[in-house]
Amino acid sequence: MINITLPDASVRQFEAGVSSMDVAKSISEGLARKVLAAKVNGQVWDASRPINTDASLQLLTWDDTDGKSTFWHSSAHLMAEAVESMFPGVKFWVGPPLDNGFYYDMDLGDRKITEEDLAALEKKMHELARQNNVYIRKEVSKADAVQYFTEKGDEYKLDLLQNLEDGNITFYTQGQFTDLCRGPHIPATGSIKAIKLTNIAGAYWKGDEKNKQLTRLYGVTFPAQKELDAYLLMLEEAKKRDHRKLGKELGIFTMDEDVGPGLIMWMPNGTVIIEELEKLAKETEEEGGYKRVVTPHIAKESMYLTSGHLPYYADSMYPPMELDGEKYYLKAMNCPHHHKIFAAEPRSYRDLPLRIAEYGTVYRYEQSGELFGLMRVRCLHMNDAHIYCSKEQFKQEFMAVNDMYLKYFKIFGVDKYVMRLSLHSPEKLGVKYVNQPELWKETEEMVRNVLIESKIPYVEVQDEAAFYGPKIDVQIYSVIGREFTLATNQVDFSQGRSFKLHYTTQENTSETPIIIHRAPLGTHERFIGFLLEHYAGKLPVWLAPLQVKILPISDKFIDYATTVKATLRKLGVRTEVDDRSEKIGKKIREAELSRVPYMLVVGEKEMNEGKVSVRRQGKGDMGMISIDVFAGDIKNEIANRIAG
Amino acid sequence: MINITLPDASVRQFEAGVSSMDVAKSISEGLARKVLAAKVNGQVWDASRPINTDASLQLLTWDDTDGKSTFWHSSAHLMAEAVESMFPGVKFWVGPPLDNGFYYDMDLGDRKITEEDLAALEKKMHELARQNNVYIRKEVSKADAVQYFTEKGDEYKLDLLQNLEDGNITFYTQGQFTDLCRGPHIPATGSIKAIKLTNIAGAYWKGDEKNKQLTRLYGVTFPAQKELDAYLLMLEEAKKRDHRKLGKELGIFTMDEDVGPGLIMWMPNGTVIIEELEKLAKETEEEGGYKRVVTPHIAKESMYLTSGHLPYYADSMYPPMELDGEKYYLKAMNCPHHHKIFAAEPRSYRDLPLRIAEYGTVYRYEQSGELFGLMRVRCLHMNDAHIYCSKEQFKQEFMAVNDMYLKYFKIFGVDKYVMRLSLHSPEKLGVKYVNQPELWKETEEMVRNVLIESKIPYVEVQDEAAFYGPKIDVQIYSVIGREFTLATNQVDFSQGRSFKLHYTTQENTSETPIIIHRAPLGTHERFIGFLLEHYAGKLPVWLAPLQVKILPISDKFIDYATTVKATLRKLGVRTEVDDRSEKIGKKIREAELSRVPYMLVVGEKEMNEGKVSVRRQGKGDMGMISIDVFAGDIKNEIANRIAG
Repeated sequence: MINITLPDASVRQFEAGVSSMDVAKSISEGLARKVLAAKVNGQVWDASRPINTDASLQLLTWDDTDGKSTFWHSSAHLMAEAVESMFPGVKFWVGPPLDNGFYYDMDLGDRKITEEDLAALEKKMHELARQNNVYIRKEVSKADAVQYFTEKGDEYKLDLLQNLEDGNITFYTQGQFTDLCRGPHIPATGSIKAIKLTNIAGAYWKGDEKNKQLTRLYGVTFPAQKELDAYLLMLEEAKKRDHRKLGKELGIFTMDEDVGPGLIMWMPNGTVIIEELEKLAKETEEEGGYKRVVTPHIAKESMYLTSGHLPYYADSMYPPMELDGEKYYLKAMNCPHHHKIFAAEPRSYRDLPLRIAEYGTVYRYEQSGELFGLMRVRCLHMNDAHIYCSKEQFKQEFMAVNDMYLKYFKIFGVDKYVMRLSLHSPEKLGVKYVNQPELWKETEEMVRNVLIESKIPYVEVQDEAAFYGPKIDVQIYSVIGREFTLATNQVDFSQGRSFKLHYTTQENTSETPIIIHRAPLGTHERFIGFLLEHYAGKLPVWLAPLQVKILPISDKFIDYATTVKATLRKLGVRTEVDDRSEKIGKKIREAELSRVPYMLVVGEKEMNEGKVSVRRQGKGDMGMISIDVFAGDIKNEIANRIAG
Repeated sequence: MINITLPDASVRQFEAGVSSMDVAKSISEGLARKVLAAKVNGQVWDASRPINTDASLQLLTWDDTDGKSTFWHSSAHLMAEAVESMFPGVKFWVGPPLDNGFYYDMDLGDRKITEEDLAALEKKMHELARQNNVYIRKEVSKADAVQYFTEKGDEYKLDLLQNLEDGNITFYTQGQFTDLCRGPHIPATGSIKAIKLTNIAGAYWKGDEKNKQLTRLYGVTFPAQKELDAYLLMLEEAKKRDHRKLGKELGIFTMDEDVGPGLIMWMPNGTVIIEELEKLAKETEEEGGYKRVVTPHIAKESMYLTSGHLPYYADSMYPPMELDGEKYYLKAMNCPHHHKIFAAEPRSYRDLPLRIAEYGTVYRYEQSGELFGLMRVRCLHMNDAHIYCSKEQFKQEFMAVNDMYLKYFKIFGVDKYVMRLSLHSPEKLGVKYVNQPELWKETEEMVRNVLIESKIPYVEVQDEAAFYGPKIDVQIYSVIGREFTLATNQVDFSQGRSFKLHYTTQENTSETPIIIHRAPLGTHERFIGFLLEHYAGKLPVWLAPLQVKILPISDKFIDYATTVKATLRKLGVRTEVDDRSEKIGKKIREAELSRVPYMLVVGEKEMNEGKVSVRRQGKGDMGMISIDVFAGDIKNEIANRIAG
């Protein structure tokens, strides 16, 4: 008998050789029907694979990221089967799952898949799925595998085999299709109910443009049609809310060939949003006892050798500038500079927790192919801060940071979010992670406990920590359900030592502080990108670059409009007058399109009575009220950052 | 007869061969006594030198920068004469005037000048000055000059002679001392009345540490003892107000070896000052119709080739970073990025003047030997903006910028300032200046007219323009009389063309805007350095990092102190409580030293009556008042930026 430990820490006994699916069935048939794969001792396995020793087990369904991933990986195989049946002799390279869906790269020889073929392929996939073919795993010797693909004449799989060793080679077969594959896969094709092939693209073999161009076929699948429908609707909505389109239309940001890819220039309207976000952060951080600093954007090589960024993070940094025989680097993180500020004065327990905040600008190298609007950029304005505290203070400080996240979620109407606790991977100590196994264990435990105690929803992922400690990645969802990685919240037991940071304890001993790295509003780039989609460009009044547009019915009322504008600007309300000699209908239409939250139409009646006719963007006429009432209302709406 | 044109544009006739001193005497004997040298056709000459053709003439006295410079240069010769009389056989290298005083580099062989020698040298200089020896200019052939210094065995002057040509070689003699010197000099030694030798230092010959180390002797002289006294008092006061000393004591800024020389890190207290200055600038610029932007700190080489910074300004830039086959540079100026923002949207006359503002951070390479505290740094946060306007709008825009300067001077209590109109130098067109002679003339005329019309005190200097147009350097004086170059205000007729910037005129034609570059608050680095000296660290309340410190008489009153603090912080007043168990005397002493403007002492009586006992830094006890009255007063003092 072996012991199977479930996520609720309960332990059940089974015969050795039991499969995860057997365990699921022993719990409930309903559950078993939903099982797509299982995590056995932290590794994702086929649900059918026998377990021979004591193990921890987590059953994976569509609700788990790893469950979805397995589902889409199996769908890629299903698609390949359909392609092979329609294009015999096709050769396949790799077919991984994506965040949303999957693709497969293939060599069709002289043939081509056209848009018209997609419907036929989808139909074929449905047909194969309905056969409910089981995904069968088979361990194969390298010699047998090479023989198989040599006979098939498939140079791509033979290329893959070169890097594999005996004992690590498996084939998966479903229906008529067999593939060299590490797995895992879902039990059978029958659970793939909704299928959409989304795109055909070219992709150079191994990403090298000197190689042959393969065909990359993209698809997405779901366990039910209504989920596919919702997904396609979301995509359509996301297209309308595309931050790149809105960013241009609303004068938020621009890019330029001479400045460089991934380097955002914030236009006046974008800068207003930036300043409002910074104001919010500064107020919140002031209240939270943070102190602000301003640090340069460069530092010498020695700084990043001390911090460990250079060995561990070099690929993400800009190359150095050589000056006076020294190498200078653009900072990719603000932390080393903040550590230097901590170290600039002698510190005692009375100074702790010391919370050092800066909306710092950092530079990170992303491959130009990875750059995407505001989402993946090379220059990032980060809502950064570092908290230097004692072990005893850690819990309270970490919880306060989490509370700050929740406060922001409320302000921005973020209803759905997940915190991902990213842990290290023991086998990568000294390579990807600082080699301090005991400290890793202790710190990860500390963070996990805070999360459990705060009752914040979270998931754990292996091998995604920062190199100096565990981190929490905060993922939020826009109103249309798209996921954004907002920010991270990191615990650092390592850099304090590297930078020889010390404080004098109450007992007059010397101690190294724990450091919390946090950035609840993430970067301006990503957060404003998120906000544009989330609000479809219709920002709440407090964030709107222009808050009020006054529309005189004719030139006669421009003077009155100007008086109204002066009244509002005095209160700090961003107001303009449309003083063009255009028809009022056109003025309203254009103001609506520009997404200004309030339009004030003024004519004879308004002027004589000291009033304005209010229109709310997207909501139409709200009636005529006195200037003072309107001014009071909007001032309140702005001051309280009402979500609109 | 020749025509001599005086600065007031009046023309007088004299015999050819008249000297400037003769002209001065023809005006008044009193004036002649004050004449130190003269500017003839823009070049500084000896007052005794004959003028043989029509010329413009400006008589130079102690009140002119060039007059002072000549006086100090002549004083260096006087010092050399004194040194030679006390250390026969001494050999001299060069002895230039400085901003304040002069030095002479000399080779004393095995001998040394000690601190004790200085008094004797000063005495000797006084003796020689009283002889009122005339400075005699003599043109010498190269052969004669070489013979003279060969006989004297002076290899230093022979080295200098190598680079000189016949017709350009002059000797100057006063008393027993003859020197190879381009001049000019003052008429005679008698006007040097007050003398102070200030420092002895070592200096490698030609600044190369492989060469012999020479002795550099520094001095300063004045036409009257009271001026020397005032100068020495100012130096002493400046030492107390040294921004580097205050910057450390008050936690304003720090530097670090691992970050790099000249790269300031702003500590929390410095950051408060930065944020208050930025708030002031943003308010003022908002009122002035500016729009704000945020741009990256780097750009591709192509940007700076277009802007002309690369051929003209390369030495002041950091070296490039090579990425993806492109060179990226840290920006040394914000203008090119702002031009790109202008160009990002089609512009019409309706958009002009477009005023784009950014507190931009730029990086400039200064030799490490030139770096000095906050005054000469490599990273600068600049109160930058660029105004794009039509020719017709230029005057009003340029005047508005000047008005902004004057507004700031008032806020910061700057009573003395000078604007230096820096013009191009025709012979350096195409080398140091863009090669557009007509546009230079036109633009310089435009700027001069604005200055004359605004009745702003200004001086003109040749060959100090920006490479793209004339500029006004704004120089201000701290309360102790030290001069600071604050900022520049530049007109640019060139970059608009280089960047192909266009707007559509009312007549539907395409036009290039004129660009005004302006930065009234200069850089944070220099301006905060100035403020620390100007206020001796006792910043006005609105700028003070900590505005109120509450000092409970004993621990019993900490709760009450905390309530008072809460009341004040709610109003945005930066307030702390000294909750240490220390004697009130010590608390007051330390608070005074920290230069917090207000101390509120609270004890039994204050608590019972809801009052506070107010102490103003440096002024002592101001009496007991209610919290509300104090809160109202300080809120008003902050809101109106009262100078304290």
